[in-house]
Amino acid sequence: MSAIDDLTGELARLPGIGRKTALRLAFHLLKAPNDDAQRLARAIVTVRERVRPCETCGNLTEATPCAICANPRRDGATVCVVEEASDIMAIERTGEYRGMYHVLGGRLSPLDGIGPSELNVQPLLRRVGGGAVSEVVLATNPSVEGEATAQYLRTLIGPLGVRVTRIARGLPVGGDLEYADGVTIAEALTHRREM
Amino acid sequence: MSAIDDLTGELARLPGIGRKTALRLAFHLLKAPNDDAQRLARAIVTVRERVRPCETCGNLTEATPCAICANPRRDGATVCVVEEASDIMAIERTGEYRGMYHVLGGRLSPLDGIGPSELNVQPLLRRVGGGAVSEVVLATNPSVEGEATAQYLRTLIGPLGVRVTRIARGLPVGGDLEYADGVTIAEALTHRREM
Repeated sequence: MSAIDDLTGELARLPGIGRKTALRLAFHLLKAPNDDAQRLARAIVTVRERVRPCETCGNLTEATPCAICANPRRDGATVCVVEEASDIMAIERTGEYRGMYHVLGGRLSPLDGIGPSELNVQPLLRRVGGGAVSEVVLATNPSVEGEATAQYLRTLIGPLGVRVTRIARGLPVGGDLEYADGVTIAEALTHRREM
Repeated sequence: MSAIDDLTGELARLPGIGRKTALRLAFHLLKAPNDDAQRLARAIVTVRERVRPCETCGNLTEATPCAICANPRRDGATVCVVEEASDIMAIERTGEYRGMYHVLGGRLSPLDGIGPSELNVQPLLRRVGGGAVSEVVLATNPSVEGEATAQYLRTLIGPLGVRVTRIARGLPVGGDLEYADGVTIAEALTHRREM
């Protein structure tokens, strides 16, 4: 296999990148200044070397605990549960939330073999059971699986005596939190409700 | 700047990749198996190390002369002139052309400071003047600049006593050869005309 075919194949494995786009990107990387191509290759290697999940919340970070967990001005009594670390970035962009986070690392999906033990559930229960948390905001995606995950977490967290809320269904059902605009995410956070 | 921001920035420099897509790809590369990320980084470095322009035609290749120039079953009397090496791949996919190629490395574009001396024009004239070529097919893009480039080449090649043809305008004007479908490219090749 030629080097161009090889690069095209690797690029086509990226989400949302089809065969034609991959070929166009491969030729771009061949035509671009060599420095540009090298910088991209290095950035990929560096991000894998340096970025790790925060030991407390699971956010992707170069220092652990992450900047959010380490910030004394944030509200440690509120924990927002999200599916992926990228969802944290989407919520942070709104500037509407001052609490902490907890990354599940996915959602319940029996068809894909993702059960509770595949997710960061036990560390969440330990955090919430520690006594410092008064509210858990469930911000899993408003999809069927995200809702089921939120329902499941409510049955586990409810008995611990903390308030359990769910972000409002301002987000279109079936959508993906990561791609929603900031205003919609802010609305959904503001109108979170008891569950 | 964090490693994630850095990677996102490098990805956003790729053509057609906006900020949000770049962020999504960066998180994918963080979540994907480490081997996948390393393979992509390596493929970028390898393609830059191994792939060079063919000394004869300018096609991008790991061996020089390239597989097309080195193929004795191809028609050495016909040379198809294209703007970029990626255009060769688009024409080869149609299976309708059995001649040789010549890559200009762009098109005449005075506003961008691209004149004849920035393109592979002199090597083309030497090839055509060598006596073995009987037809030059001008397959620059059917854009304003591509047409101007074809006209310019015709005035130079005409006096050399070879047939000069232009791919038919079956391609939508203003379009880009690289993205056209194979049937349209094949039609345009079949109906090439004297100019």
